Amino acid sequence: MILTPEALAGMEKHYRANFVNSLSGFKSANLIGTISDKGVTNLALFSSVIHVGANPPLMGMLFRPVSVARHTYENIKAAGQFTINHVHSSIYKRAHQTSARYPDGVSEFTECGLTPEYTDAVKAPYVKEAQVKIGLSFEEEKHILANDTIFLIGRIEEILLPDNSILEDGVLDIESAGTIAISSLNSYHTTGLLGRLPYAKPDKPLKD
Amino acid sequence: MILTPEALAGMEKHYRANFVNSLSGFKSANLIGTISDKGVTNLALFSSVIHVGANPPLMGMLFRPVSVARHTYENIKAAGQFTINHVHSSIYKRAHQTSARYPDGVSEFTECGLTPEYTDAVKAPYVKEAQVKIGLSFEEEKHILANDTIFLIGRIEEILLPDNSILEDGVLDIESAGTIAISSLNSYHTTGLLGRLPYAKPDKPLKD
Repeated sequence: MILTPEALAGMEKHYRANFVNSLSGFKSANLIGTISDKGVTNLALFSSVIHVGANPPLMGMLFRPVSVARHTYENIKAAGQFTINHVHSSIYKRAHQTSARYPDGVSEFTECGLTPEYTDAVKAPYVKEAQVKIGLSFEEEKHILANDTIFLIGRIEEILLPDNSILEDGVLDIESAGTIAISSLNSYHTTGLLGRLPYAKPDKPLKD
Repeated sequence: MILTPEALAGMEKHYRANFVNSLSGFKSANLIGTISDKGVTNLALFSSVIHVGANPPLMGMLFRPVSVARHTYENIKAAGQFTINHVHSSIYKRAHQTSARYPDGVSEFTECGLTPEYTDAVKAPYVKEAQVKIGLSFEEEKHILANDTIFLIGRIEEILLPDNSILEDGVLDIESAGTIAISSLNSYHTTGLLGRLPYAKPDKPLKD
């Protein structure tokens, strides 16, 4: 089956959003924690967080147009800090619920049954119930002209994670930590390890 | 367990790369197909492809510093087109093998046992063995100053997918198509559906 841009343009808006959001493959499931200059905490589910670099340690994520209310973006720009918290299978419904449009002055932490947690190093709230949590400072942002979105980059300031979750070679075992994946806009998936492969070399081809 | 930026800085280089690459959560597994101006095809595994927008239909991905040989990036800039092909469990070892450093003039398609496939709409090669394949045109790029990487955005020109793989609400069932996820730099994961949740509303809280 082949779909053209014209076929996409002809789709109903929500149908198209579900479809095109499926095309990148599996996505990370993260709760972004922030606090406003008035002290109101905010929690928002993002599926666009990606690795940007290991040294310096950087992560990036995409923000939709700033023309609509974007508490997370505004809080990051005002406070300069935010947290990224992995969604795991025991909190995924509460995590999804943070995407409801709550009014100004209302915290998703309270409404969705999640608990803010603070450290000395980062002003923004972590999610106490999460297993893997990263505190970051705002580093850089890029305005994408094609659809008025923003790719925002943060620098890692602190990492909270379960004891004994780092494997011998430095890999963090996020599957054992319960971290889940998202597809499209509303589908949540657990994972099963298929394989861990060695560093690929031209003279040692791997066959399926 | 808490890790500081100093702890990260003190890690051995490969250990740190494995660790920090784990922190964003699960990642998409995609093969990017391109062709050079000399007609040499190229195939490269990317774990940074994300959804950028549904209308216009846009996808983005991160490229490491251009100072080292970056055939994929150079081919996209020269030809203006590229393909994104979902990695599934039957081809994941061959997909991983494309990350080996093959010399100029050698195609990863040939070396890794994958087959180029062309359509009239897109000049770049698709992966015949893939189930979900997207053809794109170069749209925009952003230079990230913090670590000299590039966030590149493509516009969707064509989508090839299995018949009957789109669910009633537009969601593409990538799990049934065999699409897999990546964690860190070398771990591959199949998925299992945990749940599909309704559009979140403030007055209809979801509890775990």
